Amino acid sequence: MNAFLNWVEQNSDRIQREYFEFLRYKSIGTDPAFKNDTIACAHWAKDYLSRAGLKTELIETVGFPIVWGEDMRAGPDAHCLLIYGHYDVQPVDPIELWQSPPFEPEIRGGQVYARGALDDKGQIFYGMTAALAFKELGEKLPINLKFCIEGEEEAGSRGLSHSLPRLKEKMKADSILAIDFDLFGAGEPAISLGARGIVTLEIALTGSKIDLHSGQFGGLAYNPNRALVELLAKLWDRNGKVQVPGFYDDVEEMSEEEKKLFSFWGDQKEYGKMFGIHAFSMENGCSMMEANWFRPTLEINGICGGYTGPGFKTVIPAQAIAKLSCRLVPKQDPERIGRLIEQFLKSHVEPGMELKVDLHGGEGSFRGRPDSDLAQAVAAAYTDVMGKPCRRILAGGSIPVIAKMEKEIGADIVGMGFGLPDDNIHAPNEHFDMKRLHMGILTVAQTIQRLG
Amino acid sequence: MNAFLNWVEQNSDRIQREYFEFLRYKSIGTDPAFKNDTIACAHWAKDYLSRAGLKTELIETVGFPIVWGEDMRAGPDAHCLLIYGHYDVQPVDPIELWQSPPFEPEIRGGQVYARGALDDKGQIFYGMTAALAFKELGEKLPINLKFCIEGEEEAGSRGLSHSLPRLKEKMKADSILAIDFDLFGAGEPAISLGARGIVTLEIALTGSKIDLHSGQFGGLAYNPNRALVELLAKLWDRNGKVQVPGFYDDVEEMSEEEKKLFSFWGDQKEYGKMFGIHAFSMENGCSMMEANWFRPTLEINGICGGYTGPGFKTVIPAQAIAKLSCRLVPKQDPERIGRLIEQFLKSHVEPGMELKVDLHGGEGSFRGRPDSDLAQAVAAAYTDVMGKPCRRILAGGSIPVIAKMEKEIGADIVGMGFGLPDDNIHAPNEHFDMKRLHMGILTVAQTIQRLG
Repeated sequence: MNAFLNWVEQNSDRIQREYFEFLRYKSIGTDPAFKNDTIACAHWAKDYLSRAGLKTELIETVGFPIVWGEDMRAGPDAHCLLIYGHYDVQPVDPIELWQSPPFEPEIRGGQVYARGALDDKGQIFYGMTAALAFKELGEKLPINLKFCIEGEEEAGSRGLSHSLPRLKEKMKADSILAIDFDLFGAGEPAISLGARGIVTLEIALTGSKIDLHSGQFGGLAYNPNRALVELLAKLWDRNGKVQVPGFYDDVEEMSEEEKKLFSFWGDQKEYGKMFGIHAFSMENGCSMMEANWFRPTLEINGICGGYTGPGFKTVIPAQAIAKLSCRLVPKQDPERIGRLIEQFLKSHVEPGMELKVDLHGGEGSFRGRPDSDLAQAVAAAYTDVMGKPCRRILAGGSIPVIAKMEKEIGADIVGMGFGLPDDNIHAPNEHFDMKRLHMGILTVAQTIQRLG
Repeated sequence: MNAFLNWVEQNSDRIQREYFEFLRYKSIGTDPAFKNDTIACAHWAKDYLSRAGLKTELIETVGFPIVWGEDMRAGPDAHCLLIYGHYDVQPVDPIELWQSPPFEPEIRGGQVYARGALDDKGQIFYGMTAALAFKELGEKLPINLKFCIEGEEEAGSRGLSHSLPRLKEKMKADSILAIDFDLFGAGEPAISLGARGIVTLEIALTGSKIDLHSGQFGGLAYNPNRALVELLAKLWDRNGKVQVPGFYDDVEEMSEEEKKLFSFWGDQKEYGKMFGIHAFSMENGCSMMEANWFRPTLEINGICGGYTGPGFKTVIPAQAIAKLSCRLVPKQDPERIGRLIEQFLKSHVEPGMELKVDLHGGEGSFRGRPDSDLAQAVAAAYTDVMGKPCRRILAGGSIPVIAKMEKEIGADIVGMGFGLPDDNIHAPNEHFDMKRLHMGILTVAQTIQRLG
């Protein structure tokens, strides 16, 4: 690995420059205003993979294109690894809380601040750069390698999901390495053997045709803000258990093996301290590990109704809205969960209030085998690069399309990454650092060598 | 009255032109961005009163100036009438729902569309124009007349409230006519003998230092949106009764006289139809009249937390906020009610959540005598102008400063106005019409004559 280490050190300025180029694209795939920036970002990633010696193309989808690269010269008997990541990023609101513009990467205190610095541009960038290192070092790839980098992960992976049946053959692989995960803690390597699924829905409650004066109508018209808080408050009991009938039907208890493998986490007070969290929501007081990895959630991601600007406007608003999402565990079906929540809301809404529920669908959870070839290779690479034993963990978040890829391709799955929970992904001032990015290059390079 | 009728008809073009001039000032007193427009609007109103022959001045306050005009030439023995109104208007959000720009008055289908067309620029404009008619007709005023037109009614009347003790002597009057009220229905005259008080407060719930990823933290961190809906939902029981201890302590049952005077209203289904309202909130099923005139309310005027823009952002927000207000009945003290709600919220908030409550204060309710000289004069004037008997009613809304003026000046109070509940005050597409504006001029002119 010395050759790779030397290559990274000698090329560190160029690596940073190209990383920053990638980050400057405003690839907010969820917002139509940034469509052109997102497409331009895909072109940049394709060109970068071409320079790494891969045969590349942009695969058109119903949404944003998939950046594709492959090198099959290791021959039909060699292991085939598919590396997955995404070039789209989350929106940037609340923009006023960013200390530097989100698409002008800036280094402060050793950290690179930018939207996508970690999630997932920073992560997939070190994966692509590992391939570039092989090319520039003149090392033949010991395995067949494919890259699949989508542009809609933050929006539910519509394009890739729709294209999967058609691309099944092209994507065929022995294993899938999804680079969009976290370390277990600073300096603590871990491979992720699964993530939760997700389903999202929007609800709107309408009480009148126009906003009403809260004096003229106060005491008469039912306020949609009140109807909304009363309706949403019914979703949980005092212990945090979701009250939607059938919500937990397909949730399985942890197995003995799972309890053994995963029971090393954790101290909630210590964990909460970093973010100033003092109120916790573990369902029925279960452990953090169980709550975050083995139990589903229901969250209100957004709520809005009436006047919330400066000063006061004493209205009874015509409408109030909320955006909800669930994190799902294996066997829970996103469509079914969405419909159950819809039924619950419809049967509990204040009579006379108009309720509209938009189900946006979602994706299931996935789980990889703890001792697959890929799991062993990545774990050993991590240990070598970071000098520490590598844990097996699960992720509380979701990589919606991975479950579908696993089903369609039938490959072993491992999630890896160098993220830390205080990197502010999905929040203002997202950051990552060049040191972890360099370790990422080396870990992916060594994984490829070990699989070879 | 024929002379006044002729004057209005002969001057109708000019009246409309000057009314539109007044409406074009963006006098949104609650929003600091419109400070200069609001002050310019005050100057315009002062100049208009000067042209009506009154001695005028702008009285400086801690907030926006009071437009003052007086004509005391009727002598010390004559009745002294103080006319109250306001030149500030409500904000215009949601601006996208306006069919024409809110500060460019436009006539469509016989209605004048503009912010302030009715509330309260349109209303006080006909009051001022009645004085102009006396001047131009060469009719000596038979009473002493004062105008007090403030610029902060929509923001709680801070300037006028602070100035009242100092202006007590200047404002001395036998009766106060507050022109900021509604008709009982189209073509149905009514004088208002009272309005509810108001108190407002803002609350903020903070769960963490930054927005959190709903996967990484879902099931662990308590979501402030959830804490907020659970907290606010506790404010009412199933029958709409406010659950804050002490909230109803000072609320009095209706007297037999009140039951007799006011029991002519109303049919909620008919009333709701106009605005598409199908869900009602009358506390414990009481009548509309009792709910809107004799019972206090608690409303969520605004609620906001997390991401509510286009697309989806799966956050657990750091903070969620709400703006609350109460309408109050006689003897309820705004400060006390605010503190009771604060105590309730603090004792019911999820442990570990940081709760901040900002009490903005408010003003009490007021009530006028049903048979004062002014009440009789206005009622007779209405009947004469509109050809219908005039009802005595109460208002569900608030004119916060009137209660204070009543206390300080000790005068009889009557509220009048030509508003209708579908004029969209405080909402997009506020409107009024020239016919009602003309009737307003005649009704105020005749009230002055009858008091003389």
